[in-house]
Amino acid sequence: MASSTFSWSITPHTPSYPTPKPRNQPPFSNSIINNQSTSESGPQVRKPKGSPQLNRWSRARALRSGHKLERHSNRTTQAVELRSPDSPTDRAPPEPAFKGRDGDDDVERTVGKSIYMVSDGTGWTVEHSVTAALGQFTHCLVDRVCPVSTHLFSGVDDVERLREIVKQAAKEGAMLVYTLADPFMAESAKQACKLWGIQSNDILGPLTEVVASHLGVSPSGLPRGAFGNNLPLTDEYFRRIEAIEFTIKQDDGALPQNLNKADIVLAGVSRTGKTPLSIYLAQKGYKVANVPIVMGIKLPKNLFEADPEKVFGLTINPIVLQTIRRARAKSLGFCDEMRSTYSEMDFVRRELDFAGKIFAQNPTWPVIEVTGKAIEETAAVILRLYHDRKHKCSMPRISKRY
Amino acid sequence: MASSTFSWSITPHTPSYPTPKPRNQPPFSNSIINNQSTSESGPQVRKPKGSPQLNRWSRARALRSGHKLERHSNRTTQAVELRSPDSPTDRAPPEPAFKGRDGDDDVERTVGKSIYMVSDGTGWTVEHSVTAALGQFTHCLVDRVCPVSTHLFSGVDDVERLREIVKQAAKEGAMLVYTLADPFMAESAKQACKLWGIQSNDILGPLTEVVASHLGVSPSGLPRGAFGNNLPLTDEYFRRIEAIEFTIKQDDGALPQNLNKADIVLAGVSRTGKTPLSIYLAQKGYKVANVPIVMGIKLPKNLFEADPEKVFGLTINPIVLQTIRRARAKSLGFCDEMRSTYSEMDFVRRELDFAGKIFAQNPTWPVIEVTGKAIEETAAVILRLYHDRKHKCSMPRISKRY
Repeated sequence: MASSTFSWSITPHTPSYPTPKPRNQPPFSNSIINNQSTSESGPQVRKPKGSPQLNRWSRARALRSGHKLERHSNRTTQAVELRSPDSPTDRAPPEPAFKGRDGDDDVERTVGKSIYMVSDGTGWTVEHSVTAALGQFTHCLVDRVCPVSTHLFSGVDDVERLREIVKQAAKEGAMLVYTLADPFMAESAKQACKLWGIQSNDILGPLTEVVASHLGVSPSGLPRGAFGNNLPLTDEYFRRIEAIEFTIKQDDGALPQNLNKADIVLAGVSRTGKTPLSIYLAQKGYKVANVPIVMGIKLPKNLFEADPEKVFGLTINPIVLQTIRRARAKSLGFCDEMRSTYSEMDFVRRELDFAGKIFAQNPTWPVIEVTGKAIEETAAVILRLYHDRKHKCSMPRISKRY
Repeated sequence: MASSTFSWSITPHTPSYPTPKPRNQPPFSNSIINNQSTSESGPQVRKPKGSPQLNRWSRARALRSGHKLERHSNRTTQAVELRSPDSPTDRAPPEPAFKGRDGDDDVERTVGKSIYMVSDGTGWTVEHSVTAALGQFTHCLVDRVCPVSTHLFSGVDDVERLREIVKQAAKEGAMLVYTLADPFMAESAKQACKLWGIQSNDILGPLTEVVASHLGVSPSGLPRGAFGNNLPLTDEYFRRIEAIEFTIKQDDGALPQNLNKADIVLAGVSRTGKTPLSIYLAQKGYKVANVPIVMGIKLPKNLFEADPEKVFGLTINPIVLQTIRRARAKSLGFCDEMRSTYSEMDFVRRELDFAGKIFAQNPTWPVIEVTGKAIEETAAVILRLYHDRKHKCSMPRISKRY
């Protein structure tokens, strides 16, 4: 539904929120989407409570209208009239084919259960947490016995839009998970969910409270991306970028003369996931080089001259490797002959044996079995070993300073 | 402290946990670190409660001894004797220079407040959440007014190790944040923190409960990386790897003939963060190409032939760009002459103007101001626009099916 002329009251006894004027901004007509552009024409967000500091910051945040541009495009505005949320039919919408009175809007209808994820920032924290929680339900998600759809709403920084989303979640029979730094927004989400009778979970609220109590300081109540609240030009920022650029340049055995500059060196046969693993580690700020092991091709001597404490071997189950290689050969359109040397079982086994002999000759290199591991898991094992070796502490942990 | 001969009881009235035998495995002597290797010699994890299903799975998980190799290395074993946790000095250790009776262990001592993060999986969820929560305390973390250190303990899947960590957190005056799928482990963490008087937060427990109630199924109680609980060879896995490989090959204007194959094309002058942004989006499964805009150099015609709905321009404040370019020129060891053409203000402004003209000629391309935005934030803006355009729905959201 278009938010422009949308009017909705939180309870039938309180007055409706003021109806914002329709705006006719062109959708993406080369408008710079930034933190600085103004939104005087935007909806007047009414915040009945909140500290003066918060109100001041709310104003600053209202200036960040970047993501509003895409919300209020020149779509046809619709006057939406709704029953109050305590009307029983609206409160507990029948599933799965509930049709609201504004059923003409073009929201995608989903099969199965929906989870709405709402964030005032990028939304990656809430997405990450929901994905992790869904990992607990793999047994019913596989084969879509119980299909689940997630819907991410990021950059939600006004209470009206928040309530629209909650209302839509109620219509769709969804639950709501949110990360909202502003205590008023978090409370509004909680109240709106209660009112519409939908289940909800505040991901960061309880954690932020405990951290505040531990540090003995109050939280700012501002989303991470809030105006003036982020300092990307830190040393860490430059270090991450440098790591990514280094890792891209070193990919697939390029520039072996730079192996000594890498923090981590990965060695393994083709399709053991060296590239995605390298990139994942680079995102975390580590310079990674990866060296392919190919049967019959001599490895660069720099690999053996590099600090063996930073070299990690990758190995994989031959049957799984063959499956991956077959898929790869197909997607690359290999001819029959090439396909057989690359993905036939005999070759796969011999190449893995070849790699195994190299690993045996370099006993300092830990060899990691990647079969059945997601990239993140292999990365976690490598980083545990890396930090453990580096700090030689008896309680292996990865420490970071803020 | 070495875990081998460590003995500690959860309350003074319950018997101590059995003392595991010291093991003398070589630290990384080319042992394959995998899900399959056995750990019969490992500690006997006592789980007083838990469903038969959980016990069965606990056994399966005990087979995943990968990360145990690095824990139980051939360091000198120490017999550690501890007072019971209800001894007041242990319960509320004085800060900052608390010295335990086993003060000879080599755990790094940290200044300021510590946050211990414990996970039975990779630990990225807990790390992500803590980083997000710390975003609420930027005002006191900047300039290290209130320094904070985080310590990540990943792959924690036995209760003994968990309790060791809690005890160490208590000694260091740290708080504990955890993601533990096994309800017994989560409960143990809670109880141990209560006993030692330290603050704690369970990140996923409450969310998992709400999701379980929403889906109407019980959670598995297994960490995501548990044996048999992950299926990395899904279509999504292959899609992500393909996206990363595509993006690396397309970096910095390479292979302009492939621009039509990209999901997203980024255009901007040097140092607007095209590469890290491309890689970040690729990790999320999008094929990204980036095209540098260099004053006086003609852009590839394929850029203008590609679907304009997928092209995004990046722009940045000239002063910030100059700062970044100066740092870059320095790190690359540019000579004076090159440095001036690259990072001097006049050139920077003219190049940004040049890019601005190209953007003006292509009004369909949204132009994103990256100044003051972290990579994740720019990515979030791009993905919102991308999905909004693609689905043309009136309630912009990024949907995903599980």
